[in-house]
Amino acid sequence: MIKVGIVGATGYTALELIRILLRHPTAEITALTSRDDSRPHIGSVHTSLRDRLDLHCEILDVDSLAQKVDCAFCCLPHAASAAIVGQLLDAGLKVIDFSADYRLNDATSFESIYDVRHPDADRVGNVPYGIPELFRESIAGADLVANPGCFPSSALLPLAPLLQNGLITPDDIIVDSKTGVSGAGRKANLKFHFPECNESMTAYGIGTHRHMPEIDQILTRFCQSQTQVVFTPHLTPMDRGILSTIYVKHSTGHTPDELLDCLNDFYKSEPFVRITSGIPTTKDVSFTNFCDITVKPSRDRTVIISTLDNMIKGASGAAVQNFNVMHNFDETTALL
Amino acid sequence: MIKVGIVGATGYTALELIRILLRHPTAEITALTSRDDSRPHIGSVHTSLRDRLDLHCEILDVDSLAQKVDCAFCCLPHAASAAIVGQLLDAGLKVIDFSADYRLNDATSFESIYDVRHPDADRVGNVPYGIPELFRESIAGADLVANPGCFPSSALLPLAPLLQNGLITPDDIIVDSKTGVSGAGRKANLKFHFPECNESMTAYGIGTHRHMPEIDQILTRFCQSQTQVVFTPHLTPMDRGILSTIYVKHSTGHTPDELLDCLNDFYKSEPFVRITSGIPTTKDVSFTNFCDITVKPSRDRTVIISTLDNMIKGASGAAVQNFNVMHNFDETTALL
Amino acid sequence: MIKVGIVGATGYTALELIRILLRHPTAEITALTSRDDSRPHIGSVHTSLRDRLDLHCEILDVDSLAQKVDCAFCCLPHAASAAIVGQLLDAGLKVIDFSADYRLNDATSFESIYDVRHPDADRVGNVPYGIPELFRESIAGADLVANPGCFPSSALLPLAPLLQNGLITPDDIIVDSKTGVSGAGRKANLKFHFPECNESMTAYGIGTHRHMPEIDQILTRFCQSQTQVVFTPHLTPMDRGILSTIYVKHSTGHTPDELLDCLNDFYKSEPFVRITSGIPTTKDVSFTNFCDITVKPSRDRTVIISTLDNMIKGASGAAVQNFNVMHNFDETTALL
Amino acid sequence: MIKVGIVGATGYTALELIRILLRHPTAEITALTSRDDSRPHIGSVHTSLRDRLDLHCEILDVDSLAQKVDCAFCCLPHAASAAIVGQLLDAGLKVIDFSADYRLNDATSFESIYDVRHPDADRVGNVPYGIPELFRESIAGADLVANPGCFPSSALLPLAPLLQNGLITPDDIIVDSKTGVSGAGRKANLKFHFPECNESMTAYGIGTHRHMPEIDQILTRFCQSQTQVVFTPHLTPMDRGILSTIYVKHSTGHTPDELLDCLNDFYKSEPFVRITSGIPTTKDVSFTNFCDITVKPSRDRTVIISTLDNMIKGASGAAVQNFNVMHNFDETTALL
Repeated sequence: MIKVGIVGATGYTALELIRILLRHPTAEITALTSRDDSRPHIGSVHTSLRDRLDLHCEILDVDSLAQKVDCAFCCLPHAASAAIVGQLLDAGLKVIDFSADYRLNDATSFESIYDVRHPDADRVGNVPYGIPELFRESIAGADLVANPGCFPSSALLPLAPLLQNGLITPDDIIVDSKTGVSGAGRKANLKFHFPECNESMTAYGIGTHRHMPEIDQILTRFCQSQTQVVFTPHLTPMDRGILSTIYVKHSTGHTPDELLDCLNDFYKSEPFVRITSGIPTTKDVSFTNFCDITVKPSRDRTVIISTLDNMIKGASGAAVQNFNVMHNFDETTALL
Repeated sequence: MIKVGIVGATGYTALELIRILLRHPTAEITALTSRDDSRPHIGSVHTSLRDRLDLHCEILDVDSLAQKVDCAFCCLPHAASAAIVGQLLDAGLKVIDFSADYRLNDATSFESIYDVRHPDADRVGNVPYGIPELFRESIAGADLVANPGCFPSSALLPLAPLLQNGLITPDDIIVDSKTGVSGAGRKANLKFHFPECNESMTAYGIGTHRHMPEIDQILTRFCQSQTQVVFTPHLTPMDRGILSTIYVKHSTGHTPDELLDCLNDFYKSEPFVRITSGIPTTKDVSFTNFCDITVKPSRDRTVIISTLDNMIKGASGAAVQNFNVMHNFDETTALL
Repeated sequence: MIKVGIVGATGYTALELIRILLRHPTAEITALTSRDDSRPHIGSVHTSLRDRLDLHCEILDVDSLAQKVDCAFCCLPHAASAAIVGQLLDAGLKVIDFSADYRLNDATSFESIYDVRHPDADRVGNVPYGIPELFRESIAGADLVANPGCFPSSALLPLAPLLQNGLITPDDIIVDSKTGVSGAGRKANLKFHFPECNESMTAYGIGTHRHMPEIDQILTRFCQSQTQVVFTPHLTPMDRGILSTIYVKHSTGHTPDELLDCLNDFYKSEPFVRITSGIPTTKDVSFTNFCDITVKPSRDRTVIISTLDNMIKGASGAAVQNFNVMHNFDETTALL
Repeated sequence: MIKVGIVGATGYTALELIRILLRHPTAEITALTSRDDSRPHIGSVHTSLRDRLDLHCEILDVDSLAQKVDCAFCCLPHAASAAIVGQLLDAGLKVIDFSADYRLNDATSFESIYDVRHPDADRVGNVPYGIPELFRESIAGADLVANPGCFPSSALLPLAPLLQNGLITPDDIIVDSKTGVSGAGRKANLKFHFPECNESMTAYGIGTHRHMPEIDQILTRFCQSQTQVVFTPHLTPMDRGILSTIYVKHSTGHTPDELLDCLNDFYKSEPFVRITSGIPTTKDVSFTNFCDITVKPSRDRTVIISTLDNMIKGASGAAVQNFNVMHNFDETTALL
């Protein structure tokens, strides 16, 4: 039995993580933290957890946490996370970090994109990126894993194999993503006030979203040239789900069918990636750890549709999948 | 006072049309038709119209209709519409047709795209396309206007001026559109059953949607070369609204700012097109006849966002705008 | 032309009011106020109003306002409103007040219910309650009207005639109301954060909601005995709309059909109350000033269903209806 | 390992059942049936089950089914179910029946309420009603269990203990229920077409809903006198969830607090009923087998709020709970 703690337990990713871990036969949640001095019971923070887990959220104290847990899921904002991950590792814990702090190839990129000094710059670049389908081996041996961004997961799963096999041109990729509102986190904000975003759709972060360079940096590991993905996220009036519509050009001499075959082949033994000939919906993968992908021709382009649940395969499900890989548990444990 | 009739009064576009026309000071609805033998009262067909309009839906009889109305809004399915529009015109009526029957440049295209013989092939190609902002002059003198498709409206309004001014390359345009479910019409279908499409998003008609050639055909009137727009519509869990995210390449030597300037200039006197520096939402234009447009750079691309209400500027509002132009009424009558 | 000002222009009721007044042929919006020092343009406060109304929101100054407007719609919170209404009246304006400050029969009740001193206690009890269908005559001659609460409107419209005619027992009335989230106002709050209230329903204010005594106080004007309405509001995942399910007991010797007849008779000349034999939906009245009502038997009870749009007949539409009555305009002006 | 079959596998309750059973360590789904001659694969019927369960839906053949399964979940419409349940029992299977066929106390009631001859009248009245919290003992020894209605579950769980303990008056109970649209089943119908019921709320079946007598009949087992519950269901624009607002009168000499104490005591060892002092939301119980209940005073009434997921505790979760009880498995297996 692995004792796990959740650092930053009041948000949606933590809630989802707790729901999943409560089904995990060889993990036990033994500590929760938040910045709230009043030590709130988790059942009052997340009322859906009423009577499910009898723990209070403590103020984070690394020593105390290290005595209670073997592994920490760190659900803190960027920069805040890297300020303590090193201490958790030094205390002997394994860590799965939800923030962007360890996802990029180098700290300079991070500092430029996030406009803040990286508190643990030395580790950046040496931490496995937590998509087991792409980086399983390095995750298996790691003490720290960088859990991927939700949008990047939906783009990288289809794009990485296609680039690796030279089936698409790297310099002409457009990722048009639509996400449910839970992706915005659990903090009151007029933009996410129900009457503002219900019955409405909008784009945001056009040309500037931080997941754009994250996608590029990971893709460079799968092709020679540097991609320059054009990425546009959109807010959709639903709780959860990401649908990415990805416009690519198949390389000369190749066909959209070959792209589908490549993905079918690459993911044929993967439990959580489903390549389909139909067009997937976000509801098909809602509340699951699946990523559903299809490929369709459209004139001289090829259109890839990729769907996942931003809270699960895009966050907490992926985190538990990484946890399972890191601890040599069956990778699907608690996730089906 | 112009007496108007609505042919095919049971659908959503007809409902929206009635709502608008009830506010029109110089139009009076004097006849409604449907295929229902029972002559249902419009207040029972659309319960929101209870006590608003005391008319029954009659079975269509051209002679009878011609005695009651001066102008017909034809809300029939494609091919069914063209089968009667000629008779309505012969009977001396003006007609605004909601179907695709008279939108394309030639009947051969229509027959190939819609896979049905065109019942009134000779007229195709000579009917003004009902976007007053682009074709006002020909609409003003017409007896028949082809009301545009909802997706094409959202794409053509920004693209036409940019192509006309040579600011973007015609051969690399991607239109990623998101629509509310009312666009699917008012007919029970498992795909649009609430628990199927609520909290879900999906793409459809990838590479095959009939609005794709419609967009191309109208765009050819604004540029020398034939465009090959890649168009992907998506179903979004909301009643109404279209948001089109349009990926273009600005021509060599031009900048995204120039695109915005061009649109600002082109639409500066238009009452229903609002060019904005912010990112518009579908809710901004919900229940209005506005189309809101912005332009943003994203790496080597330019991203255009265009929003409109598919039921109003995308259908019934545009129809009344055309009606106003055809009758020399103030174009905004009943639409603000 | 009546010049109107809106005091407190940044909320949803003000937005709705502006939308309606922009259609009003004999009202012109000439001033807006908010507490924001930066004097924001209304088109940036409410982006849907972009290019519709070229006014900035000024800090309230009574003298300045009095020079610009003949009539003020006051959309301030309770107590804040009564602190300035007197000054507006003294400056010679007519005022329609959206707050609860002048709705109750006496200031003591107000202070007990709202737990704050009433800043203008003397006027309380002498201000007409703004439901024209019930109090048209006193509204017509008034300089100040208390615009009613949204829930009370939905309950009072059916209950007042039935009590007045002795058709139901006053001491056994249950009002179970469901409202869209716009009723909560336009202020970020975790409770109304999209992922918290979407796909969820909850009750609130059980036994304590301030609209409960408001309903009772107005009902006492229609029957001898004091009612003790049991009122429970519920939050529903939709933007707008109130549906009240009202459980009453018909008086001995009477039948549910007689209740329906009574309402039909009472409202037969009213333009905005529609008595129906079918069961109304909130969508039937969405974006309208209608209140739809039906009566159905259920065992030994009678069930009344009443629907209205909380933002229109429940707030801003009612306000314009009152404005029309106060100025002797056709009562339906700008409201159909 | 118990081999289970699902008769009528194409609806929402079957989908939910499959999702739950796929997590059940001692149940294996070995057969599915539908009326579709084409033997569709379950992954095409429910695309979310893609790659989860490799079974085709067969036309029901009792002999063939009996060879493949030990226990059948019967998800057929009323009357259709009772036409085959007897055969399934005769073939030695255990059966959990989702229909109303075996829920009532006698076949005469059934025939009067459902207006159809009961095909298996003799069994009616001898089948345990499948709420384990109330009838665990009889369920444990049964071969056939009548899975309860979703609305009745939400009403009976709080009302049964209170009536049994004489804390409320039996002749004055009002149940005002709100349900998500999945309760309407998975069949296209204009009433449940997304643009009809989204952003709308309505009541239905006022005074006539079939769950009204079901509630009464079960309640008679907990009190001497016959209840006459007034029950009104409402359709709410969300996928799933039932919230019942129940208006009761506490018996003379008792208080609302005593009601809460009674429920706390009655359910203190139950894993799936959570008595709370806060007001529960449907989201708290969404995708879970919990029923959350609170009690609040409101003037001379007591208001009970009860929430559950209509697809889980209101249908398929309850069915698996019954399955666990019938097979002497831990009652929470696959349900937490």
